[in-house]
Amino acid sequence: MTGLKLASLITGAGVAAGLAIVASRRGAAPAAGTTGDTVPRYAGDSLIRPNGVERWVLAGASMGLGYSQPSGADAAAGAAATGGMFHNVYIEPTAYEHYVRTGKFRDKTMMAMTLYEPGQKVHPSKQGFFEGDFIALEVSVKDTKRFPGSWAYFNLGKGAPGSKAVANPRQGCQACHAQNAADDNVFVQFYPTLRAVSYKFDRRRP
Amino acid sequence: MTGLKLASLITGAGVAAGLAIVASRRGAAPAAGTTGDTVPRYAGDSLIRPNGVERWVLAGASMGLGYSQPSGADAAAGAAATGGMFHNVYIEPTAYEHYVRTGKFRDKTMMAMTLYEPGQKVHPSKQGFFEGDFIALEVSVKDTKRFPGSWAYFNLGKGAPGSKAVANPRQGCQACHAQNAADDNVFVQFYPTLRAVSYKFDRRRP
Repeated sequence: MTGLKLASLITGAGVAAGLAIVASRRGAAPAAGTTGDTVPRYAGDSLIRPNGVERWVLAGASMGLGYSQPSGADAAAGAAATGGMFHNVYIEPTAYEHYVRTGKFRDKTMMAMTLYEPGQKVHPSKQGFFEGDFIALEVSVKDTKRFPGSWAYFNLGKGAPGSKAVANPRQGCQACHAQNAADDNVFVQFYPTLRAVSYKFDRRRP
Repeated sequence: MTGLKLASLITGAGVAAGLAIVASRRGAAPAAGTTGDTVPRYAGDSLIRPNGVERWVLAGASMGLGYSQPSGADAAAGAAATGGMFHNVYIEPTAYEHYVRTGKFRDKTMMAMTLYEPGQKVHPSKQGFFEGDFIALEVSVKDTKRFPGSWAYFNLGKGAPGSKAVANPRQGCQACHAQNAADDNVFVQFYPTLRAVSYKFDRRRP
């Protein structure tokens, strides 16, 4: 480690979350070399934060991606200039292997989204954006017997090990995913790793 | 798969590269559940494309990140408005576990960078950017006995299975990494997954 100033990148909650990820694999988390939970675990109506998310397969990253029309001011300067939040979308590895093999999201598929503030102008970068402070962890689960419409969506906040959340109301995430996502409630149109697979299985494409 | 128009996202080389990734795990690639090569393979002076890159651990994603000063026009409108290229930076999983455990990049560490065109305004997104067409695969390798300065950098183009490349000239990538990267030639300052670990091992920080 050189004397570069990382401290300005990693403040407050970002540090806590980062260390929580490290801590999670030393406590109740999987042994090195494994990827953690392969199916969802619940406590009553709550999803328990899956272990090993940071080792899952990246589906794709995005920046400032939004489904509402930006305001005139945003469009002119705001969102583009500040970049908007980064989203990393992951899929649990055994669910990914199933998708590669079959083109289907199997029951008990888990996906995760980590959100980061955009960072910029840390040496030596002079343009563009990288992933700065960690903001939150969200998880989606396909569990046909448990959830009407098969999928449910959970906000796990800072994602500390053992944290739990009940599903978001159906009219929120789920309604939009069901209507607009290209493959079984998953926005594969935005995720290159899954898009390549989906495309291969889509009989209507060349 | 619904009738959404993915075709506009996935054209020409992007499709070829995507399918190559799928194909690679059906041919000489690792069995499902493994992560592929854990150490570099060479053919003479050339690095052979490592298998399983798309299953490696994401170090971090960035957009339009650059180390040169943008021109006035870029700064005013260009780069911010078009977003610049996405970079996904991965680390081979056994090297990641070593880094988590020790805070060091072990000899034979491999990292990879995949580059994507920015995609935008595909339904239902109305703002922001996602990862569009695949552009190229680059790989870095720490191999102390083989490379002066320990690290070398390889451009693998579209990254077809079995493709090979000789190392880039040292005065290019390597000189900048050696001088500016925060931890042993790796730009951990830009990668949240590694930053959290690096921070934990940095005795000079709180």
